[in-house]
Amino acid sequence: MTALLPDYRDPALTARFLAAAQALLGPRGLTSDPDLLAPWLTDWRGRYTGRALAMASPASTAEVAALVRLCGEYGVPIVPQGGNSGMAGGATPDTSGEAIILSLRRMSAVRALSAAEGQVVCEAGVVLQTLHDAAEAAGMRFPLTLGGKGSATIGGLIATNAGGTQVLRYGTMRAQVLGLEAVLASGAVFDGLTVLKKDNRGFDLKQLLIGSEGTLGIVTAACLRLLPASTARVTIWAGVPAITAARSLLRHLQARLGDALEGFEVVPAHCLASVLAHQPAARSPLAGAHGWHALIEFMSSRLDPAGLQEAAEAALAEAMEQGLLDDAVIAANDKQADEFWALRDGISAAERARGPAVQHDISVPVEKMPEFILAASAALEAEFAGTRAVAFGHLGDGNVHFHVLAPQGAIPGEWETREGKAISARVHDLVCAWGGSISAEHGIGQMKVDELARLADPVRLQMMRAVKQALDPAGLLNPGKLLKP
Amino acid sequence: MTALLPDYRDPALTARFLAAAQALLGPRGLTSDPDLLAPWLTDWRGRYTGRALAMASPASTAEVAALVRLCGEYGVPIVPQGGNSGMAGGATPDTSGEAIILSLRRMSAVRALSAAEGQVVCEAGVVLQTLHDAAEAAGMRFPLTLGGKGSATIGGLIATNAGGTQVLRYGTMRAQVLGLEAVLASGAVFDGLTVLKKDNRGFDLKQLLIGSEGTLGIVTAACLRLLPASTARVTIWAGVPAITAARSLLRHLQARLGDALEGFEVVPAHCLASVLAHQPAARSPLAGAHGWHALIEFMSSRLDPAGLQEAAEAALAEAMEQGLLDDAVIAANDKQADEFWALRDGISAAERARGPAVQHDISVPVEKMPEFILAASAALEAEFAGTRAVAFGHLGDGNVHFHVLAPQGAIPGEWETREGKAISARVHDLVCAWGGSISAEHGIGQMKVDELARLADPVRLQMMRAVKQALDPAGLLNPGKLLKP
Repeated sequence: MTALLPDYRDPALTARFLAAAQALLGPRGLTSDPDLLAPWLTDWRGRYTGRALAMASPASTAEVAALVRLCGEYGVPIVPQGGNSGMAGGATPDTSGEAIILSLRRMSAVRALSAAEGQVVCEAGVVLQTLHDAAEAAGMRFPLTLGGKGSATIGGLIATNAGGTQVLRYGTMRAQVLGLEAVLASGAVFDGLTVLKKDNRGFDLKQLLIGSEGTLGIVTAACLRLLPASTARVTIWAGVPAITAARSLLRHLQARLGDALEGFEVVPAHCLASVLAHQPAARSPLAGAHGWHALIEFMSSRLDPAGLQEAAEAALAEAMEQGLLDDAVIAANDKQADEFWALRDGISAAERARGPAVQHDISVPVEKMPEFILAASAALEAEFAGTRAVAFGHLGDGNVHFHVLAPQGAIPGEWETREGKAISARVHDLVCAWGGSISAEHGIGQMKVDELARLADPVRLQMMRAVKQALDPAGLLNPGKLLKP
Repeated sequence: MTALLPDYRDPALTARFLAAAQALLGPRGLTSDPDLLAPWLTDWRGRYTGRALAMASPASTAEVAALVRLCGEYGVPIVPQGGNSGMAGGATPDTSGEAIILSLRRMSAVRALSAAEGQVVCEAGVVLQTLHDAAEAAGMRFPLTLGGKGSATIGGLIATNAGGTQVLRYGTMRAQVLGLEAVLASGAVFDGLTVLKKDNRGFDLKQLLIGSEGTLGIVTAACLRLLPASTARVTIWAGVPAITAARSLLRHLQARLGDALEGFEVVPAHCLASVLAHQPAARSPLAGAHGWHALIEFMSSRLDPAGLQEAAEAALAEAMEQGLLDDAVIAANDKQADEFWALRDGISAAERARGPAVQHDISVPVEKMPEFILAASAALEAEFAGTRAVAFGHLGDGNVHFHVLAPQGAIPGEWETREGKAISARVHDLVCAWGGSISAEHGIGQMKVDELARLADPVRLQMMRAVKQALDPAGLLNPGKLLKP
């Protein structure tokens, strides 16, 4: 799909492009220094390493637009990049060395924040943690968080429609975006920052840009919603007899406490054991052994802490009577609540330390998830001898991280290389058969581009390709990501 | 944009097309009988009358798809139609007589409803009132309603991203749609009915179809969200000293009762007087005279009625102390609450009866609406001698219906024809200058297609045209609506 000029690799032409870009962006705005480039050529999981002509770091939307026009003139592909903490290689250039990285990190201003309106305007390079701090300073909160909050940028979070642990109540990044500014492939600026609660002037183009992974435009700024800070938090660690009981518990708590239910994560015994082995200081919140655990969090900006705790305790007591849980403990304070979350957040690292695994970020309809976990685990363990399947995470969103662990004695690296593709194909086939998604929250990037091409509904693929062709006819925006040319 | 066959008006070819369509759809599925067609050739406001080859009424998604393919072969334009209660002529064919009307009304099944999951799958032809009844029978509610609920269909509500009086809390139709099925211009079926809370497999094509007014695809079914039925309702009629005070009152109530605030409508003295004159049995809820009135409704599915009323009364008392309202009355029962709403809902008819007016459905950012109303009213009344501007409606959404009333003695019909275009252009120019939308909730249809072309950001228009061209290259889906060819 890329339309490079025939003589693109001509060094003189490349030099002319780089000089023009340098003149446009100034000394801080462009670098080809290998040492400065190196950290941004590999994704943070270390799976992909590419090459690039240079890294551009424009300081304003106007500079982004001018650079995109320049790239269009010279046929230079553009790889937009935020915090470089994506999970699917979507911000890593390919190995041709023909693209430039377009870093948005210098565009890091919080342009405006209004607690009264519940709105904040951030540039694309604002780091999520910075936004959390700015909101908190104004007595508000931004209702999306995730592990990479110290590096993930607003632009990247929008481009990948990021999820996290509060989606159950507040939705993904899409639900937080009230307005958007982006630079299109033509270099034109899509100016959609003004927030209108109602606006029926045709197609909602903002929605098309959210989650498009930089293939349709480059997010330069956004207006995001803020909510009043929470005044009460109740965090619970529960032992549940089975994953099906966890689903019933979820429904019960939703019925009893409505949308005060903010998090509902499931952790199988295997994952808890891995974390306890990996974190010497960690302790299991419950004395007994349980097949499954649920980490449950309620938040309220209206109920006082005592009122919320009382309601939570009543709902848990009912659940225990109904056999939906075996045992539960309510965190006595924020410190203990954070310890519960540290167990949950430590799973990925602990599982990695325990041995090789093939990982999947998948979703199915919420109601079907327990049965899917049981059926898919059994299928994978039967078909790949010696493996063990574990699933953990966002049961309330119908989204789990589904890991297939290597047999005892498998050689790290060698085993994944040999078995990984077949295992993932089987998991993804099952997900599709259950009506699910092969990428629940991490996106497609370069990691799943072949699997998407293999498994997506041809009608959707055709629509996506037509839209891509319409909005980026030269194919210069993040080529090779999301859609195969 | 339409690509009719050169010999399209050839009667033999037309006859062949109609015979093929008849064979496809069966005796109930197609009619060219002028008496049967007549009611569907004029929009319900009586502003537009068109002609059509025939009206097709397929009974299934497969029949819609086959018909669209047939229309593609013969180059026959398609005008999708639901309840024919749209406000912008979007479902009325043009006067060429070359198009067919594609009625979705026979596809009227509620395919599935799950109270536990909070989901209902409706075909496009399900009438909104029918959905309300089905939800109520299951102890649930569908959180969108509007005046035309007895005729408006789910397909039309999605195609126009309908609003109504609960948007403040629950959002527009877009926010209710969990999944979507549509037939594309190619005749392919976009199958997006399976609901996944998280799915990052590329562009969110469903969002592109919502609000596209039948120009990108024909909605055939949708999965919609249901909420638990409300158990408590508190409805208030308040007299407020000024429109700016109404905004402060809105913010105060949102801060105090959070999202239990479900409706916040404003009614100026002029509109209340019109309704009282037009409805002899109606009475003003308050004894005194007030410049502005606010109709406020709280709903809760968790608080009991006494608890909700207590919270509302406390918030109102605070507001009165702060001078945000002059007087207020809480509806004693549902009957009185319905009477309050009848005053609000009667405004359009009462204003029509009082004399000629040019009407606008506009939005600006919520914070700016009071100042916009004051500034725009002053500008219009100064520039069009003898007119009077009134604005009423959804202040909480930044969306009012802005009417410019004819001078005393103006001749109905004659005055609008002479002055309407200039008045609307001036109102729309002001709206754009304030960062607003010339169509907040009614859509573009054929009514505002010229104004959109005149006023829309060229970058957006270009993006929309590119997407339209990509997904409907022959331009057969609802031509002449939303976008000028």
